This record gives sequence, structure tokens and C-alpha cells, in this order.
Amino acid sequence: MTYFRPELEAMAGYVPGEQPQAGKFLKLNTNENPYPPSPKVVHAIQQAAAAGLMRYPDPMGNAFRDRAADVLGVPRDWILCGNGSDDILTIVTRAFVGAGQRLRLPYPSYILYRTLAQLQGANWEEVRFCDDWSLPPEFAAAAPDLKLVFLPNPNSPTGTMVSRDAIRRLAEHLPCPLLVDEAYVDFADENCVSLVARNERIMVSRTLSKSYALAGLRFGYLVAQPHLIQQLIKVKDSYNCDALSIAGATAAIDDQAWLRDTVGKIRATRTRLAEGLAGLGFSVLPSQANFVWCTHPNHAAVTLYERLKQDRVLVRYMNYPGWADGLRISVGSDEQTDALLALLKAMV
Amino acid sequence: MTYFRPELEAMAGYVPGEQPQAGKFLKLNTNENPYPPSPKVVHAIQQAAAAGLMRYPDPMGNAFRDRAADVLGVPRDWILCGNGSDDILTIVTRAFVGAGQRLRLPYPSYILYRTLAQLQGANWEEVRFCDDWSLPPEFAAAAPDLKLVFLPNPNSPTGTMVSRDAIRRLAEHLPCPLLVDEAYVDFADENCVSLVARNERIMVSRTLSKSYALAGLRFGYLVAQPHLIQQLIKVKDSYNCDALSIAGATAAIDDQAWLRDTVGKIRATRTRLAEGLAGLGFSVLPSQANFVWCTHPNHAAVTLYERLKQDRVLVRYMNYPGWADGLRISVGSDEQTDALLALLKAMV
Repeated sequence: MTYFRPELEAMAGYVPGEQPQAGKFLKLNTNENPYPPSPKVVHAIQQAAAAGLMRYPDPMGNAFRDRAADVLGVPRDWILCGNGSDDILTIVTRAFVGAGQRLRLPYPSYILYRTLAQLQGANWEEVRFCDDWSLPPEFAAAAPDLKLVFLPNPNSPTGTMVSRDAIRRLAEHLPCPLLVDEAYVDFADENCVSLVARNERIMVSRTLSKSYALAGLRFGYLVAQPHLIQQLIKVKDSYNCDALSIAGATAAIDDQAWLRDTVGKIRATRTRLAEGLAGLGFSVLPSQANFVWCTHPNHAAVTLYERLKQDRVLVRYMNYPGWADGLRISVGSDEQTDALLALLKAMV
Repeated sequence: MTYFRPELEAMAGYVPGEQPQAGKFLKLNTNENPYPPSPKVVHAIQQAAAAGLMRYPDPMGNAFRDRAADVLGVPRDWILCGNGSDDILTIVTRAFVGAGQRLRLPYPSYILYRTLAQLQGANWEEVRFCDDWSLPPEFAAAAPDLKLVFLPNPNSPTGTMVSRDAIRRLAEHLPCPLLVDEAYVDFADENCVSLVARNERIMVSRTLSKSYALAGLRFGYLVAQPHLIQQLIKVKDSYNCDALSIAGATAAIDDQAWLRDTVGKIRATRTRLAEGLAGLGFSVLPSQANFVWCTHPNHAAVTLYERLKQDRVLVRYMNYPGWADGLRISVGSDEQTDALLALLKAMV
């Protein structure tokens, strides 16, 4: 006898990238930052720990919201803090999409969105990117029971971007909210925060995991119009962010000089990685994120993945039926990138 | 035009106890611990912060599970870590209860359970405690679409307990899982962990917020049979606990001597508080938690709450229609308790 909701038993569950807890790997598989977070973050966390953790944290994380409001140029009540942007994506899905309803996402894209739909007992539909990685008009078409659209921008696994102007036009046609998942946007040339004020259906989510080098901290946030934030608060756990992550995230977003420096290095190394891969015969998509997607005309991606793993280098092998399989490789430091390229050179 | 699920717009949302972020209050309203956490916890967090937060945390929090398994006497795959026990309660509700289905809870009890049902678009039914704070047979009766039963034990706001033997018998009759919410159990004389092995329908949740003085850390866990844990993993966010909270929680559960010392002090002060209140004419329920529920025959509870707040002492005023309204007062230190009693003495 089972007690679970049938949707749950039927689904496989989302599998995140490998996180080996033992052994030494060069990890280029989950888009972590090769550089440490700002020293001010470490200091703020250590202070918060010493100040005592007996009290519940601020349920809204207002210290972070105040600093983020300054940096983003929006009022603080346009910001919702989350326990990683996963928490934000979960809150948004639960708020808008009921059982039997539908969410939309592009293809190929972030697989977690499907899992979020499955957990709600909801349906999902995938709309293929155009060959130039723009989105066709179908992406903005009305559909029965369509309640939410996810658009990662830059997209994963491709690293490609849809322009802000195109997103603005898509949202004008959509009958439902559009969540622009900007997990990787700090590595890109533009972002969509300014669109939130122009259209209540546009929401933007961010994470501190990638560009701020705080994957271990679990902190993300949403930017949306305040009447939406008010409803979303009902869905979140009362104290969804802890006192340490609020302190660390506040210090992180306060140190924009550190962010610019780190992002500058990673963008430079991204070019080095893309050019190095191209020089070895790989097809490499133009990336605006801290990873690149590549395939090789003469070598199976899964074989390259396995051989790299034997050499204790982890990259992400991904297989998207009907599109392609390939490798999503995170941008590490220059030294890590050179080590990867040297290994690949011996394989192809 | 609205985009939200109708259930969400119709509901009020759970309101946690006041958490003033400014000004000095004697906080006896949210059952926080008056003593600091173990110094080993602070040290472990500071080390984890310095070691770098660039990497994602262990998705399962296995360091904590290993130590908790030792302390609890269960295998590690019987344990699921959560971002506070709120996260555990959310995961369990989402796993078992679909839209239009039903969960059951006792009355009066923890109001959040209703909110969790509302968020799922589910129904709930409340079964009144007996006059001796045991549960009637109806609590274990079959009912259409009943998918989950919550039982806080010790209960909030009353601090009363249902015996382990009674819970074992209730679960044998129930047609669905029973979540025994042991948020306050470290202050009590017995607990239900040993029942989990005897009946797959019994699950036990815990938090480190109260007895371990880590409300600011957000860490809780579930004990359940491993085939249940395997399904629940699909519901949780991939990295629901951050690297700092895993490190802190592991150090906390490893320091059982600190726990015994703190809990011993709080239990002694609980007696002092209950006797002091009784001496002022209050009716006080016998408490196995770190708070007491009290009413006064001659004074409205809401007035006492408001006058205490003017004096910068926060207690929790709660109103349960059909049962009573009263004050739920957290057990602080001896000094805090004496200060509270002195203020009340001047009021009654």
C-alpha cells in the first residue's frame, strides 16, 4: 500500500549535478565560481554566528532587501528573498499553477522546471528555440490553462540569450506571468530588471550561487511588483532564509566592486575556454553565462565526459532528445581551463 | 485581473510571532531559547564560512545524518534534513495531500498546519482534545480522502502531551501517515522515535530551533522509514540546507552534554514560572514544553498581553474560538521569568 500522491510516485525526481563529498575533483559541472566570495561575506557570517542564533531571523530579510533595492534601483517591497533561487522557483510555481494546469518553458532548457510542474500535478509544454536562439511567437501564445512561463536568460544548458526587447514583446502577448530566471545574468551584457516596472506579468529571479560564489549559502531573490510579492509571501515558509545567509547575502550584494572583478575574470576566461574548444574542433555556442555548451563532430560527448571523469575532471553531460547531447562546461580559472583543454587535446 | 491560484488569494497567510528587529524587548513569545547555542556550533559555522562557500552543499546533509543517526539510534537513511522543521512539514504535506484531499489535526493546536492544507488546496478537519488532553478515538477514525494527520507532541499552545502508547495505538487505527511534530520534545519526559520502526505510518519531525537554541539557523529533520524518505527527497529543493546550517547542526547534535545542561535549566525555570503564575491566580496547564499556557479568571488575556507589550515584554496572545483565549509564555531564564512575574503581579 502506498500513501503518496500518485504524481509523486510516478515521477523520477530532479537529479542535480554530481557533488562529490570526498576525493579531489576539478569541478566544472555545476557552474560554481572558481573564486572565493568577498571577504566581507565571510566576516559578516562569522559576526552573525558569534552574535547568537537563538532568535528567529527576520522573516523578510529586510537588511538584504534594503541593499538590493539600492543596487537594483527598485523599492524594497519589490524584492522577495529565497533559500536559493530554487526556493523562489518553487514559491512561484505553487502560487500560480494548480493541479491539471499548465506551465511553459523553452526547449532545450533547465530540467528542474518540469519537476516543479510534476510536483504540482501540473502539465508543461516545451517550445523549441529558433535556430538563432530567439523564441518563436508560439512561446507567447495563449493556451488553455496556461498559468506560468519560465524563461532562463541566459539559458541553460546553451548559455544563449533572448534580448530584453524580445522578452518585453513576448510578455505583452502572454496571458500569464513570465518568470525570467536570471541565475547567470551577471555574466551577460544586459538584464531584464527594468522590465518589471513596465509589465506586472514580468518577474525576475536571481541567485547568489554563481556570480557571488555563494552556492553553499543558498540565497536567491525575486523582483516583482509589490502586489505580487504580497501574495507570494503567503506561500513561502515563514522563516525561509536563515540569519547567516541574510547576513552573508547582504554583505555580498553590498560589495559590487568584488562582483565586477570576479565577473570580469570569468568573462575573460570564458573567451579563452570557447576559443580553446573551437581550436580542438568543438562546436561551441556563444555563451553569456559562466559555462559553455559544446559538441564535437567526431567524438561522442558521453565518452569525453567519462574519460574526463576518469582523470578526475567533472563536466556535465546532458542529453536532450530531439535536439542534441553534449557537454556543459563551467568556466573555471585560467589554470583550470588550461588543464581541461590539455586533457581534451589528448582525447580528440 | 489576477493570476494567482484562487486558494491563495482567498487565504490570509500564516502570521508568525512578532520578531521586532529594532528596540529592546524581553521576548517570551516565540519559544526561543534564553541560552546561547553550544560554542562548538559557533566554531563549526565560522570554520565552514572560512573554508569557502563557492561549492554547493551536500544535498542530503550526510554529516548531520550520520551524527543524528548515532544520537537517535536509527540508520542514517531514516533521516531527512530540512530548512527548519517548517520545511519538513511543507515537504510532507506536499507529498501526501493533493488538492481536494484532507488532513487532520487536533484542536487547539499549531495554526500553521491549516495554512499548509490551504496552500495545497486541501481540506482539514480538527478533532478536539479530551478534557484530560488525551485524544478521542475519532482522531484515528477513517475518513474520505484523509491523507495525513498532524500531531504536535508536546502540543502548542497547551504544552500538554499524548503518551507514546496512546500514539502507537492511534497510528494502528489510522488509514494514513501520522506526523508527530516533536518540536518541543527535548523538554518532555518521553518521545516517539522508537515508534517509527514499529509502524511505517508514524513519522517524527524535530527542530533545532528550540532546545538547541538555533532558531536563527533554520534546521530541522524528519525520522521516517527509508522507503518514505526516498519519496520525500523528490519533493524537497535539491539543496534545501546550506553548508553553514549543516555544519552548525552537526556540531549541535554532537554536543549532547550542552543540550542536557540547557534543557535542565529550562525545565527548572518552567516550574518556577508555572508556580509563580499559579500564585498570581492564573490557571496554568501542565507543560512538557518550553512554554506554558495560562489564563486568568479576572483579567482578559489580551489586556495583559497589551500591558506587557507596553512594558516591552512580548508574550503570545492567542484566541482559539470555541475553546479559549489566553497567553502562551515562553520559558526564559530565571531572571527573565522573575521580571515577567513582577510585572504581572502589579497587574492582577
